[in-house]
Amino acid sequence: MTTRQLIEQIRSKKSFLCVGLDVDLNKIPSHLLNTEDPIFEFNKAIIDATHDLCVSYKPNTAFYEAYGIKGWQSLQKTIDYINEKYPEIFTIADAKRGDIGNTSTMYAKAFFEDLQFDSVTVAPYMGKDSVEPFLAFENKHTILLALTSNEGAFDFQTLETNHKELYKQVLETSKSWKNSQNLMYVVGATKAEYFAEIRKIIPDSFLLVPGVGAQGGNLQDVCQYGMNDTIGLLINSSRGIIYASNGNNFAEKAREEALKLQQQMKQILEK
Amino acid sequence: MTTRQLIEQIRSKKSFLCVGLDVDLNKIPSHLLNTEDPIFEFNKAIIDATHDLCVSYKPNTAFYEAYGIKGWQSLQKTIDYINEKYPEIFTIADAKRGDIGNTSTMYAKAFFEDLQFDSVTVAPYMGKDSVEPFLAFENKHTILLALTSNEGAFDFQTLETNHKELYKQVLETSKSWKNSQNLMYVVGATKAEYFAEIRKIIPDSFLLVPGVGAQGGNLQDVCQYGMNDTIGLLINSSRGIIYASNGNNFAEKAREEALKLQQQMKQILEK
Repeated sequence: MTTRQLIEQIRSKKSFLCVGLDVDLNKIPSHLLNTEDPIFEFNKAIIDATHDLCVSYKPNTAFYEAYGIKGWQSLQKTIDYINEKYPEIFTIADAKRGDIGNTSTMYAKAFFEDLQFDSVTVAPYMGKDSVEPFLAFENKHTILLALTSNEGAFDFQTLETNHKELYKQVLETSKSWKNSQNLMYVVGATKAEYFAEIRKIIPDSFLLVPGVGAQGGNLQDVCQYGMNDTIGLLINSSRGIIYASNGNNFAEKAREEALKLQQQMKQILEK
Repeated sequence: MTTRQLIEQIRSKKSFLCVGLDVDLNKIPSHLLNTEDPIFEFNKAIIDATHDLCVSYKPNTAFYEAYGIKGWQSLQKTIDYINEKYPEIFTIADAKRGDIGNTSTMYAKAFFEDLQFDSVTVAPYMGKDSVEPFLAFENKHTILLALTSNEGAFDFQTLETNHKELYKQVLETSKSWKNSQNLMYVVGATKAEYFAEIRKIIPDSFLLVPGVGAQGGNLQDVCQYGMNDTIGLLINSSRGIIYASNGNNFAEKAREEALKLQQQMKQILEK
C-alpha cells in the first residue's frame, strides 16, 4: 500500500485509528474457546465489527508465537482475512525485528512476502544494515522504534548522545538510510510534549502511536503536537477496544469503544 | 539448563562452539529439496554430524519465519530433535525479541515454554521492563544484544552516553535488573580489542560471540581478551560450518569444519 492510499483512507473514514490485535486466550470470551481456532474467530469478529472505524490492524506477533504453530496459523488466517475482505486496511506486523543484513532480509520476506503485511515494526539497535533490507521493499513500510511507551524507554532511549537524546539520534540517522521514504516511526503517546521536538526532525513521516487508553496517553495532546499536513498519525488502541467486554457482546462493545475514538478523531480532522 | 551444566559440558567436550542453524533453502544440497521437510532434514544431518564437537545450537528464527507455517514447523522439529536426542546441548533461539512487559512475557513463553529453548536473544532498546519478563524464568537464559558484529553496530551502539559508549551503558544498566544472573550477552568477534573493556564491566557473564569465520573475527584474540575462569564464551559459527559443502557430503564437511574449530578450542582450554 502506498502512503497516499493510507492518507486517502484516513480522509474517507475520518479516522486514523489502528486496532491492536493482541489476543490472549485467557481474556477472550469463553464461548470462543470451543471453536477450532479461537484466536482467529475472535479477530474475525473484532475486524468485522470495527473495519469501517479504523484504518489499520496491528497484530503483535508475540501473542501468536506464544501458541506455537497453531498461533502462527491464526496469524496467517487473520492477515489473509483482512487482505481479502478489507483490502483498503493498512496492516502492521508488530514484530520489532532486526538482525544483520542477510537475516533481516529473511524477516522482511516473512512479513512482506509470505504473510503479505503492508508494514512491520523494527528495532534500531543494530543500525543501518539491519533496517535497510526492510526498506528495499516497494510500497511496504518499516516502522522504526524511536520512543516507546513503556517505562524502560527511559533506560536508553532518552540518554544524551552527541548532545541529543538517543531516540532523536535514531530519527536523525535513519533519514540518511537508503529508501528512508519507506520509514515510519513508533512514538509513544505517554510523552505528548516530545512530539513537537520530534516533528522538527521528521516533519513528514507517519508516526505509529501506542499508549492511548490503557497506557494513559491523551489523544488531543498527541494530535496537537504530532499531527502534520497529511495527518501523519496512526493511533493504536489494543486492550481498550478488543477487551471492552468478554461476554457474548464483545464485538459490539469493541465497536462502541472504536466508535468513541473515531468520533474524537473525526472532530479533530474537521477542525 | 543451569550455567554450571553448560560449563561442565564445555570442559568435557573441550569445546565452546555454538553452531548457527541459519538454513537457507537456496544454499542446501539439492537432493534434500525432495524430502518432506528439507530444513529439518538438513538440520538433523548437521546436528548428528557435529553434536560431540559443539555445546550449543542456535537457529536464527528469521530463517524459519521466512517460510511461514512450514518454517515454524521445521523449527519445532529441530528443537524437539535436539532436546530429545542430545539433551546436554545448550539451545539458543536467536530471535532478538523485546517488547513492553506483558508482550515480552508472551515471547518468553513462546521460546521457553512452547518451544523449550534454553535461551533466547533479546534487544535492549526498550529497556528494563522489556527484558525482565524473560529473566523471570528459572534456569533459562536471556542473551542481551550488547555489541553486535555488523557494520551498523557503529550507528548507535558505540555512541557516547554518560561518558561511555551505549553498549557499555547497556551492560552496566542490565546488571541492576531483577534476576540479572540469568543474563548473557552478544558481543561480536570483529572487535576483539573491546573484550578487555567489556570484561571490566561483566567479568563473570557468558558472552555469545558471532563473527568468527565468515565475518572475519579471530578466535585467538577473542579468547585472549574475553575468556574468564569459567570460560565464559560461546563462539558461534554458522555459514562456515553448515555450508562447508553443498554436495552429498555436506554433513561430513560440516563436521570437518567444526572439528577444526574444536581442536583450536581444545588447545586454548588446555593452556
